[in-house]
Amino acid sequence: MCIFKDKEFHIISNGKMPIEQFREILIDIHPYVTAIHLREKQKTARELFQTVQLLHAANIPLSKVIINDRLDVALVTRVGGVQLAFHSIEPAIVKESFPQFRIGCSIHSYEEGVDAKANGADYVIYGHIFPSQSKPDVAPKGVRKLSMLTQLDIPTIAIGGITPENTAQVLQAGANGIAVMSGVLDARDPLAAIKSYTKVLKMGDGKSGKFI
Amino acid sequence: MCIFKDKEFHIISNGKMPIEQFREILIDIHPYVTAIHLREKQKTARELFQTVQLLHAANIPLSKVIINDRLDVALVTRVGGVQLAFHSIEPAIVKESFPQFRIGCSIHSYEEGVDAKANGADYVIYGHIFPSQSKPDVAPKGVRKLSMLTQLDIPTIAIGGITPENTAQVLQAGANGIAVMSGVLDARDPLAAIKSYTKVLKMGDGKSGKFI
Repeated sequence: MCIFKDKEFHIISNGKMPIEQFREILIDIHPYVTAIHLREKQKTARELFQTVQLLHAANIPLSKVIINDRLDVALVTRVGGVQLAFHSIEPAIVKESFPQFRIGCSIHSYEEGVDAKANGADYVIYGHIFPSQSKPDVAPKGVRKLSMLTQLDIPTIAIGGITPENTAQVLQAGANGIAVMSGVLDARDPLAAIKSYTKVLKMGDGKSGKFI
Repeated sequence: MCIFKDKEFHIISNGKMPIEQFREILIDIHPYVTAIHLREKQKTARELFQTVQLLHAANIPLSKVIINDRLDVALVTRVGGVQLAFHSIEPAIVKESFPQFRIGCSIHSYEEGVDAKANGADYVIYGHIFPSQSKPDVAPKGVRKLSMLTQLDIPTIAIGGITPENTAQVLQAGANGIAVMSGVLDARDPLAAIKSYTKVLKMGDGKSGKFI
């Protein structure tokens, strides 16, 4: 089952930028993004909850919001879903209690992709694909490994060092979309930056992004 | 509404003792405790989940287990409840999504007790009452403040420096029970230690503890 109909753009918070600043960027760019990941590992549950409230007050659609690790905050705020890592509750366990809830898994290998699929993940985020500031000491996976992963028949969002220039390669490798952090958040003009990405995403298959 | 019929004994994990060692103690003492709090702030969600599995495998009744902060782990493991602190999701929010779920709140003042009650907490843990190793730099509340709090008509479990010798004072101040960490976990004979406490708890109102 593929929950993604079109090529997607996921924006990921970087855990460092003040949420007010992130929100200002989101106010401009949210119509162009498929999903907004709150990846705020240092925040408490209450702070994360307040962050979601802040986004809601700015009319950011919560159906696009995905919360990293804290399933509980995702459930009580009724956002779009949760993104689970190796240190999170396992996806199969989450599915057992909350079968309707959308679950993404962050993975770093083909084997983890096999596991994520078997464990009921709705999609995976795989990376990093290209050299990335966030992971200076780890070798990038490259598009060849991405191509292998996308044969697993689980929707795959590529992450890590993705630029408007290399997005086409990622789509050609079979990715269902891309996830970006610094490429937009650190851009002088985040709206212009995201438009450069979405232009390639639309060219990729002739459609605009839609998150269902 | 008072969910506690009798005087209670809550054991609190200290976040330092290996879980295998905590489990060994629990195997001996669990028939004497009302609630088992997993207060393991350094553990990831997956580690907490595995901790619950470990207790379950040793036939520790999960209905007695209360998980600190991580509502999600508490929900998927179907344990007895969750214990929320100031950095957790607010109790009223949890109640809204999961009305049947038992919620305890950790509080440190009368005002926080008023808030906890208004926000739908099922009970509070209040302290520390007596000087405690865990809080060497903070003045203890004492039984006088505990007496004021217990007039709030929300079940109150007292914590902090409680020994078999001072348990009667705590009960006389109106507490519905006590929560203990080092008094049992650091005892040479934890089972003997807990029996010293429960002897006073039984004398307190002539009944044994029961957690409903």
